[in-house]
Amino acid sequence: MATVIQAAKTRLPQLLQTSLRGNIGVRAASTLDISGVYPPIPTPFNADESIAYDKLEFNINKWNTIPLRGYVVQGSNGEYAFLTAEERVEMVRRVKKMVPQEKLIIAGSGCESTSGTIDMTQRMAEAGAAAVMVVTPCFYKANMTNEAMIAHFTKVADTSPVPVILYSVPGNTGLDLSPEVIVKLASHPNIIGLKDSGGDVSKLGLVAFRTKEKGFQILAGSAGFLMPAYSVGCVGGVCGLANILGQELCTLVELFKAGKMKEAEALQQRLVGPNASVTKQLGVPGLKAAMDDLGYYGGPTRLPMLPLTESQLTAQRNVFKESGYM
Amino acid sequence: MATVIQAAKTRLPQLLQTSLRGNIGVRAASTLDISGVYPPIPTPFNADESIAYDKLEFNINKWNTIPLRGYVVQGSNGEYAFLTAEERVEMVRRVKKMVPQEKLIIAGSGCESTSGTIDMTQRMAEAGAAAVMVVTPCFYKANMTNEAMIAHFTKVADTSPVPVILYSVPGNTGLDLSPEVIVKLASHPNIIGLKDSGGDVSKLGLVAFRTKEKGFQILAGSAGFLMPAYSVGCVGGVCGLANILGQELCTLVELFKAGKMKEAEALQQRLVGPNASVTKQLGVPGLKAAMDDLGYYGGPTRLPMLPLTESQLTAQRNVFKESGYM
Amino acid sequence: MATVIQAAKTRLPQLLQTSLRGNIGVRAASTLDISGVYPPIPTPFNADESIAYDKLEFNINKWNTIPLRGYVVQGSNGEYAFLTAEERVEMVRRVKKMVPQEKLIIAGSGCESTSGTIDMTQRMAEAGAAAVMVVTPCFYKANMTNEAMIAHFTKVADTSPVPVILYSVPGNTGLDLSPEVIVKLASHPNIIGLKDSGGDVSKLGLVAFRTKEKGFQILAGSAGFLMPAYSVGCVGGVCGLANILGQELCTLVELFKAGKMKEAEALQQRLVGPNASVTKQLGVPGLKAAMDDLGYYGGPTRLPMLPLTESQLTAQRNVFKESGYM
Amino acid sequence: MATVIQAAKTRLPQLLQTSLRGNIGVRAASTLDISGVYPPIPTPFNADESIAYDKLEFNINKWNTIPLRGYVVQGSNGEYAFLTAEERVEMVRRVKKMVPQEKLIIAGSGCESTSGTIDMTQRMAEAGAAAVMVVTPCFYKANMTNEAMIAHFTKVADTSPVPVILYSVPGNTGLDLSPEVIVKLASHPNIIGLKDSGGDVSKLGLVAFRTKEKGFQILAGSAGFLMPAYSVGCVGGVCGLANILGQELCTLVELFKAGKMKEAEALQQRLVGPNASVTKQLGVPGLKAAMDDLGYYGGPTRLPMLPLTESQLTAQRNVFKESGYM
Repeated sequence: MATVIQAAKTRLPQLLQTSLRGNIGVRAASTLDISGVYPPIPTPFNADESIAYDKLEFNINKWNTIPLRGYVVQGSNGEYAFLTAEERVEMVRRVKKMVPQEKLIIAGSGCESTSGTIDMTQRMAEAGAAAVMVVTPCFYKANMTNEAMIAHFTKVADTSPVPVILYSVPGNTGLDLSPEVIVKLASHPNIIGLKDSGGDVSKLGLVAFRTKEKGFQILAGSAGFLMPAYSVGCVGGVCGLANILGQELCTLVELFKAGKMKEAEALQQRLVGPNASVTKQLGVPGLKAAMDDLGYYGGPTRLPMLPLTESQLTAQRNVFKESGYM
Repeated sequence: MATVIQAAKTRLPQLLQTSLRGNIGVRAASTLDISGVYPPIPTPFNADESIAYDKLEFNINKWNTIPLRGYVVQGSNGEYAFLTAEERVEMVRRVKKMVPQEKLIIAGSGCESTSGTIDMTQRMAEAGAAAVMVVTPCFYKANMTNEAMIAHFTKVADTSPVPVILYSVPGNTGLDLSPEVIVKLASHPNIIGLKDSGGDVSKLGLVAFRTKEKGFQILAGSAGFLMPAYSVGCVGGVCGLANILGQELCTLVELFKAGKMKEAEALQQRLVGPNASVTKQLGVPGLKAAMDDLGYYGGPTRLPMLPLTESQLTAQRNVFKESGYM
Repeated sequence: MATVIQAAKTRLPQLLQTSLRGNIGVRAASTLDISGVYPPIPTPFNADESIAYDKLEFNINKWNTIPLRGYVVQGSNGEYAFLTAEERVEMVRRVKKMVPQEKLIIAGSGCESTSGTIDMTQRMAEAGAAAVMVVTPCFYKANMTNEAMIAHFTKVADTSPVPVILYSVPGNTGLDLSPEVIVKLASHPNIIGLKDSGGDVSKLGLVAFRTKEKGFQILAGSAGFLMPAYSVGCVGGVCGLANILGQELCTLVELFKAGKMKEAEALQQRLVGPNASVTKQLGVPGLKAAMDDLGYYGGPTRLPMLPLTESQLTAQRNVFKESGYM
Repeated sequence: MATVIQAAKTRLPQLLQTSLRGNIGVRAASTLDISGVYPPIPTPFNADESIAYDKLEFNINKWNTIPLRGYVVQGSNGEYAFLTAEERVEMVRRVKKMVPQEKLIIAGSGCESTSGTIDMTQRMAEAGAAAVMVVTPCFYKANMTNEAMIAHFTKVADTSPVPVILYSVPGNTGLDLSPEVIVKLASHPNIIGLKDSGGDVSKLGLVAFRTKEKGFQILAGSAGFLMPAYSVGCVGGVCGLANILGQELCTLVELFKAGKMKEAEALQQRLVGPNASVTKQLGVPGLKAAMDDLGYYGGPTRLPMLPLTESQLTAQRNVFKESGYM
């Protein structure tokens, strides 16, 4: 890792001279169409917490049969916060080899520091990512002002070899990227979209309205509000639920696009309960348990995330039964 | 007020004996169809903070020409927290006289105490309300458990002469009525619906799914997510914005029902900015200023709510201009 | 109530002309020494939720034997949010008759509206309050800016016949009165102190430092941080726990003043558990149950606050036993 | 880094078999006395964001002349979230060489994953740390239950070669380690104390009361409540302010211990404003600017933390002037 850090340091002085608006010369990347449904894939582990690449392949082979637009590798569901830098990159490298060319790979490259994010972005691109998704830094919450966010994402986008997608996930970070910041950043030629897991569709509608002429693309960050998000102008979703009910989510989008609103409404409603269980209620351990139940490999999480208790598992299964998915 | 309180006290011992599920004998009120768009009307004040009933009539006459389903009197936008009990009831009485028979009057009758809410509900019904909307008590937050909420709303519904609509508005109360509580209360024959201003459409979809066979009716509490709410099964909206852009909101609903999704999406997006300004950003002072700008009577709020500053007013007007409404 | 409201309306136009700093002519009330320990007394109810004035007298007679500085009537523990305006005033009137002259009566007179607070303040003073404690309005949270708070408290203090004590209780209101606002308001000759229940002693130290030369008096709003509060310059406490362990709290203050820090520390530590149980953990139902356990009349709360469950009661008793108070 | 990770993986299966209470054989480390004042030292950077070890030595030499108990390396003020694993360890290694034997070095070794924390703890001990301070993991907030926290800290303490200090810093992590969890973990022979930056002294008093017989040592996490913390049984402080006003903090503790409460109170009050500025208001950029102002090397932070604006700097200087420290 030392070498890469060294490279970053050498680059940084010139970065610091870059004005926030100085993105002249960066290639216009806005032509990459990211619309569609993506699972933010979990990282499968063996019992000893090492990465189970064979299980990854097993899952990918199943997902490849579904009309998903691609894969998000190292989103929150990927337990990226528990992986080493090398593991994060290796996951992208492996997935790239396992999927057909037409599937888009979006890699989460966010780190707390700007320089760390810049390096990770570079490495993710080299590993095969078609675009990167950059989460808001969050540890120094009080300092993560709008100005700091704009500076951070601008610097990252200035140097990224692939298009950048902003990533706001307040449930994990405690921070919600503001519409003002997003709209400003949408002017950057190398920032092409947003994944927003906050669930505030009013905000998504506002951002869609204010970035319409820029071709900015918004992805809903959860299946719980996928159709509502489409109804205000979003173009896709990165949905934990797509790891287990990927076909249903693709069908939901098709129904919506075909204007079959009543059927879409009914399907959306059925999905909300299972989605809530594997996301905000039980999180990754819930998702992995559901994967085990539904024919995928879920397996354990890394500690300190604990496996579901018996009663949590039963409750989750009841929710899936209520919706007819078990 | 003393007489009414007295009556309540006499009733209370027997209330305390009522089991939470003991709603036998309460008439099935679920036939009242509350679908459609409602403005939660502001209370107009004169410069001395007295209620300007003439200005109320001026506004009502304008609203009566729009295909709104009815009026919500004493919602949060009605500054009910600043009115005396008598003023709250008198507003309902006056509005009832000013509107045609077919317009539904929903009155906010929530108080902090259960007995106070029961009395106010009674008085609102006598004053002409077709239904009451009951906000979650919130001062003793730590004690407002799910059990307390269920007991409260059950007791109110047990004795209410008109159907009850639950009202969750976390931005003001700091409390979000949970899906579990709502689903349980939806079994009460005198609880027919929910107004939810929280903006979490996943929650609305879940509640819609779990109360479908009960005919429970959900109203979106803000125009910012009106179409998304419809897309998951809501049947209407109580929207501050309907006080100024009522026709646009009715049109939005029509477009949605006609399956004209692209036009609906474009209209929804245009409305989000103005809506945010007159609700969560500037609140009632923002709404009243916009009413003054758009041909209604807005006038002052009661203190401690302050009028907009010059810069706030300018910012709001710019938002309306951006959307083409000024 | 109509008469009083009428009076307020007549007064309001001239109030509106009062500049925020225009408190010339208001009597300097800062000579009232409010230092010491106060119980914020609960309102005792009969089984039918009517006020049990006989039980109030029973409690007061016991408290009168303890060297408490006085009584806070209609603090949060008084369930004031559940009382009618008339009941709130009547409680003060009764307490005034039950206590010796030297005991100070501080009455909670806060309402959501400024005009309502002005009226209630007037009535509380007439009923015998030596000072009023005015809680921050909180329903329209987004509008309760620093400017709104300053205007509100200034208007109330301008017209109050008795000194005003600011009251910040974020656990109930969701709002924390900022140090900046408090320091500004401390310049008003009729605003003599602050009761702060937030528990942030850094804030209390900062306010004490910045208001030192003004003789501003700060009361800790909970026994959980009473000695820490004294250690940064507070002069007293309004403590729910003083309703049951009043003598212990008076002893704690004496130990502190005598410089017996080790004994004070040990006593303070013993009090934290019981205090937490009857305040933020179980609230008024917890306090009332402990009163019943310890020889006072606690009795029921008004709904929607529910009585303790068996397991809550057992847990609370164990906490009191751990500290040797049962 | 790969080697270390490998080692961790080899160890993990056996770790997973360790019962939560199975700490037999771990040496009793509770004899390490950690009482006293510590600065959580910032990591000094050059203009290109590389670590300025010469500036570190410059600062350390100044701090060494003050009766501080030791140094916390890689606390939040150390920008540890922005450092690579190697940089984190190297900082400890360097500091160890710069300070006299009697100064205690406490190293922050917390990572998001349990296995990562175990490795980092091992490395910090090898680099010279006398104890480690382990922050609560926080990214997967919803999963960081009490059970997860207990499992995490138990596993770390089971294998740590040096005593472990729990670290709760809700302002950064959004999580507050609960008294129940702390009291349980205090029974572990290798968990000797807590650093708590939350500012809730009631909680600290409760924990002190419930862990008294175990010799558990609590350190206040901020100078803003240092004396209040001592007054409820804390034995020291890890205070950002100690980086610039270390002597004053040592004096404050002496005054308190000598029972000179009035002088202690006055000094504590003077310190609150400057403390607030360099911690929760402006954070590390504020602290570094104050260091530059007061004869230490502050220098830049790493991005995305931005340097102070002119107006922020002026405001901070005014606060220091108000207290007589500039």
